[in-house]
Amino acid sequence: MIAARLHRYHDPLTVEQIAEPQITGPHDVIVRLGGAGLCRTDLHIQEGQWAEKSGVELPYVLGHENAGWVHEIGSAVSNVEVGDTVIVHPLVTCGLCRACRAGDDVHCENNLFPGISVDGGFAELLKTSARAVVKLDPSLHPKDIAALADAGLTAYHAVKKAVSILHPGTRAVVIGAGGLGHIGIQCLKAMTPAEIIVIDPSEQARALAGEIGADHTVGIDGKQVDTILEMTDGRGAEAIIDFVGEKGAIEDGVAMLRNAGSYYVIGYGENINVPTIDIISREINFIGNLVGSYNDLAELMTLTAQGKVTLHTSAYPLEAVNDAMADLDGGRLQGRGILVAEAA
Amino acid sequence: MIAARLHRYHDPLTVEQIAEPQITGPHDVIVRLGGAGLCRTDLHIQEGQWAEKSGVELPYVLGHENAGWVHEIGSAVSNVEVGDTVIVHPLVTCGLCRACRAGDDVHCENNLFPGISVDGGFAELLKTSARAVVKLDPSLHPKDIAALADAGLTAYHAVKKAVSILHPGTRAVVIGAGGLGHIGIQCLKAMTPAEIIVIDPSEQARALAGEIGADHTVGIDGKQVDTILEMTDGRGAEAIIDFVGEKGAIEDGVAMLRNAGSYYVIGYGENINVPTIDIISREINFIGNLVGSYNDLAELMTLTAQGKVTLHTSAYPLEAVNDAMADLDGGRLQGRGILVAEAA
Amino acid sequence: MIAARLHRYHDPLTVEQIAEPQITGPHDVIVRLGGAGLCRTDLHIQEGQWAEKSGVELPYVLGHENAGWVHEIGSAVSNVEVGDTVIVHPLVTCGLCRACRAGDDVHCENNLFPGISVDGGFAELLKTSARAVVKLDPSLHPKDIAALADAGLTAYHAVKKAVSILHPGTRAVVIGAGGLGHIGIQCLKAMTPAEIIVIDPSEQARALAGEIGADHTVGIDGKQVDTILEMTDGRGAEAIIDFVGEKGAIEDGVAMLRNAGSYYVIGYGENINVPTIDIISREINFIGNLVGSYNDLAELMTLTAQGKVTLHTSAYPLEAVNDAMADLDGGRLQGRGILVAEAA
Amino acid sequence: MIAARLHRYHDPLTVEQIAEPQITGPHDVIVRLGGAGLCRTDLHIQEGQWAEKSGVELPYVLGHENAGWVHEIGSAVSNVEVGDTVIVHPLVTCGLCRACRAGDDVHCENNLFPGISVDGGFAELLKTSARAVVKLDPSLHPKDIAALADAGLTAYHAVKKAVSILHPGTRAVVIGAGGLGHIGIQCLKAMTPAEIIVIDPSEQARALAGEIGADHTVGIDGKQVDTILEMTDGRGAEAIIDFVGEKGAIEDGVAMLRNAGSYYVIGYGENINVPTIDIISREINFIGNLVGSYNDLAELMTLTAQGKVTLHTSAYPLEAVNDAMADLDGGRLQGRGILVAEAA
Repeated sequence: MIAARLHRYHDPLTVEQIAEPQITGPHDVIVRLGGAGLCRTDLHIQEGQWAEKSGVELPYVLGHENAGWVHEIGSAVSNVEVGDTVIVHPLVTCGLCRACRAGDDVHCENNLFPGISVDGGFAELLKTSARAVVKLDPSLHPKDIAALADAGLTAYHAVKKAVSILHPGTRAVVIGAGGLGHIGIQCLKAMTPAEIIVIDPSEQARALAGEIGADHTVGIDGKQVDTILEMTDGRGAEAIIDFVGEKGAIEDGVAMLRNAGSYYVIGYGENINVPTIDIISREINFIGNLVGSYNDLAELMTLTAQGKVTLHTSAYPLEAVNDAMADLDGGRLQGRGILVAEAA
Repeated sequence: MIAARLHRYHDPLTVEQIAEPQITGPHDVIVRLGGAGLCRTDLHIQEGQWAEKSGVELPYVLGHENAGWVHEIGSAVSNVEVGDTVIVHPLVTCGLCRACRAGDDVHCENNLFPGISVDGGFAELLKTSARAVVKLDPSLHPKDIAALADAGLTAYHAVKKAVSILHPGTRAVVIGAGGLGHIGIQCLKAMTPAEIIVIDPSEQARALAGEIGADHTVGIDGKQVDTILEMTDGRGAEAIIDFVGEKGAIEDGVAMLRNAGSYYVIGYGENINVPTIDIISREINFIGNLVGSYNDLAELMTLTAQGKVTLHTSAYPLEAVNDAMADLDGGRLQGRGILVAEAA
Repeated sequence: MIAARLHRYHDPLTVEQIAEPQITGPHDVIVRLGGAGLCRTDLHIQEGQWAEKSGVELPYVLGHENAGWVHEIGSAVSNVEVGDTVIVHPLVTCGLCRACRAGDDVHCENNLFPGISVDGGFAELLKTSARAVVKLDPSLHPKDIAALADAGLTAYHAVKKAVSILHPGTRAVVIGAGGLGHIGIQCLKAMTPAEIIVIDPSEQARALAGEIGADHTVGIDGKQVDTILEMTDGRGAEAIIDFVGEKGAIEDGVAMLRNAGSYYVIGYGENINVPTIDIISREINFIGNLVGSYNDLAELMTLTAQGKVTLHTSAYPLEAVNDAMADLDGGRLQGRGILVAEAA
Repeated sequence: MIAARLHRYHDPLTVEQIAEPQITGPHDVIVRLGGAGLCRTDLHIQEGQWAEKSGVELPYVLGHENAGWVHEIGSAVSNVEVGDTVIVHPLVTCGLCRACRAGDDVHCENNLFPGISVDGGFAELLKTSARAVVKLDPSLHPKDIAALADAGLTAYHAVKKAVSILHPGTRAVVIGAGGLGHIGIQCLKAMTPAEIIVIDPSEQARALAGEIGADHTVGIDGKQVDTILEMTDGRGAEAIIDFVGEKGAIEDGVAMLRNAGSYYVIGYGENINVPTIDIISREINFIGNLVGSYNDLAELMTLTAQGKVTLHTSAYPLEAVNDAMADLDGGRLQGRGILVAEAA
């Protein structure tokens, strides 16, 4: 089959013929890909930032946001059949460890992460597990929702944590209305009564934010912290949901956070660097967020089916993967980039 | 009456005669002090570290950990009578703002903090409010429990937040078994089934920790992180409860924290400085803690009455306040220092 | 002033001149009424059903859903000024007991309940407390929102409890789309992503339910349980929110409840009567609901100000209180009945 | 192998030779039994009370509280090896449905319940699944802890739900200090700071309760409700944990429940039958409890390993199963009855 592999860090991916994945275990599922989302993490992988954490051996196939149709199943797979439309939870999990048993799939002690630690979805076929496939209505096309598998799931997961503190009258500041942020805004709108304030340097992103649920949008003009404090009785927002994590986002975000509020970390790049005296005298919290569970993904797919979450995408043929990555890196990619193998 | 006041930052306190506080509002309560705890924050105040945050005008009376007997009450006070033994919640709160209405006294929008922002308890009499006094069994002596009013309350409050993640089989690492830490250990023991690991450089503090509930104690020998990782399947503890917040505690604490775990910040001094990529890839949380609510204090007094929390103290006459502060600063103070005015 | 008092159980109310209430305590607030909601509980009081529980002495003024303008304040009132528009939380609470300190106003150990246990709001003036008044935007007219003070608050409080189990993909069945129910539907819509199914015998009530947020409405045709089971995979809804509590509602509601789901009891009349073997083998819960806290009321007023909750009302002059009660009893009252004293 | 089967409702069990269970699926695990707990539910099954709910076909092997050693494993089993000591979670679950994915094993949509719906553990060998076996320290003997698999698990699960409302100063009333109750008392002691009040007609049971953690014990003398109200400020306990569910327990329990408190239903027999006006005016809750999750069982085994939960048992040879059942029915069984096949 055709696949796009990384042979050497810093090099472009190689689109080439490789052997098809095979069913070897009873819970294996092979998915024929209908779409694979392109993510900023793919650029970071290419640059070698994940080399040590993932321990992956080159060459391998990138792509961790996948959707398609079930192509083949192992002997013990009971939840999907060949031909089913599915979105693929990014992790292959064991179902036996304590974390899996608690519904906390992401911390599975025996997980694989296709596209990060083993072959992923920039290909015609992807090997995953019965525990990773969420069955969808056949009317949905995989390429339209693939990017929800990871980017969307991460945004949903963070917003779901914030629900318990976002009662009527509270405010959530979303930092960054890009790929993840614009899904986060829709999740906030669907799941909470909070007033939603979005901060983003791009006028276009702010306009989109306004259309999909932001109550207020704020640009980056050096006065953005003051602007948001004015919107929040001078005391800041109960929740900061930071999809950026660098370039001043953190300093701004901490300054906009209300005493006793929570800062949800999703974007990454720089450090959270805050004096402990501020953390205690303001009694503020920093909450990490990593992907989301299988049930989170199923819930997000419900919001999508209900029309409460929609995704803006730009499709590229799989062969054009390096163009897509260059467009993403250069800020030329509108919405989320989706790679589509020819047969799909 | 006699009181110990700070006239100039960096100077010793002046023990002097000042006017007695007067009832001016319907909810005012004047307490005759039986004991006032001495706290590291008093040293920080003397050094001017709180000057800007508190906005207090000098001279004023220090002392924010107070207990005694009700001396006089305002016209609308219905919950205590003259003569009642009471411990004093450190904040005077309004009872009308949204935070007070939610039971979150510490974030009262109109609070006063005697000993920090107005006259405190290093004196014979203290003016506080009906909303601040917790009635105690008359058999208790104020000087034995005064330090629970703030130090104890803060430790209790942090531990109470951790209860929901500390089910059987989990571990809590307590960093620092001093004034606050040794109360935190007892609260953990009383309120959770977690295995309690205590880390402290002092052999004496570790010995005490073992007597009051620690399952394991660890010194500071450069290998403490490895030692604790070994005790926790190589993966760290679900909860880190940091009563130190400086001198390497934070780096150690973050390294001992299990993925998906929470770090409770209580001690202060240095910064939480952690790459966002670690916060998200490990999905860890940092939770601020500031004093505790009135109900927290009442609950802590229940644990004390039940014998589940006891306090080690050293009493000084009020006149010796500067000696006590020097002993605290010099590490010569065993247990918590308590100032006792002569009449008490 | 003019007031409507109950002199004898089962008699009509007497509209008569009585003495105006006086400020006697520092936290007292006297409100000039702009509107007072009429509630089915007023009929029950008239019939003597609450005589024993309330212990009230006749004659007294009914009316426990009140809004108006601040007329006079006690010496220690700091949160409102004369002339402010306010809605009145139904209970006068002490602010000092453990329940008040936890934000659980309704269980205040020293509460008064104007309109139930002391003089209420079917009058020109009402005596309440600083702790009961929620300040509103002056553009709001009290008669348009008075009924939110109790009916609305109760619906909001119950829905807020259900938020934590109503994630995307879950269903809430609302039994009864009348005075409370139609507010509950709007709260569910504003605060949760749940699919909302409303069951009501009245075609008009169902039509209204559809307009304000119900995803599905079901009549009472003897097959309503089967209909709802079909809508919920044959397994029932995660939450049943029962605003009726009699006339078959409970049997139906329990039959529509999913295993591991929760049944929120708001309407009253008959018994919850369920075999314990069903409660355990289905692991279902029954959750009582009583009014709501001050903060709940403030949050509901935010939803109202945001246009997310609106109320359908019919105004009557205070003098026509007995006509209004007859209309309510006879099912002729459209929306919520509001009594308005002439001066307002 | 030898097994005890029920051939006809109301008849004694037949101890007979039957075919050994076989591995047929990749996750199958066959356990050689070291002990199988005897439960009141076994009597109810014999009497036919579960015939309709379980849908089981006779004859079949009873026994749903099992522990032993792994005898054989399927091809995909990775969490245990042949020879491991294990306790067996009572349900065989799929790991793929939404409930399993949330950690709520008991509501698995595809569960089997050995001993209830398929062959159980009154035998030499039991067929279960990789998802059901909790690996134990080899020093533990299965017959000493088998009864924790269901009775203990159920008690633990209910207590765990109550933890969040049982802060210092609250009271939990345990109704019934028998097989489940005496484990519940130990779990309360280990996991909460609540004052524990135990009510039981048997002096012996009360004496045991006192030894294992009850702060107070109360007999049944017609004044038990008043006695407990006196112990609880006249207002009742925050939590009632009812292991009986019949013979007056429910009426007593509801009368002892504090306003805003929760009633945990575990024992079964009669109905919860409470006027809705009481449920709302007291704002009380009824919480169903069914077995517990795999993680609950693992946590309970931690408490056992820590010596915080111990079990009183009486062993019978498997051949004497009908004697054991007669002793249980006749109230002659001290502690929990455990059946042991000869080879074990």
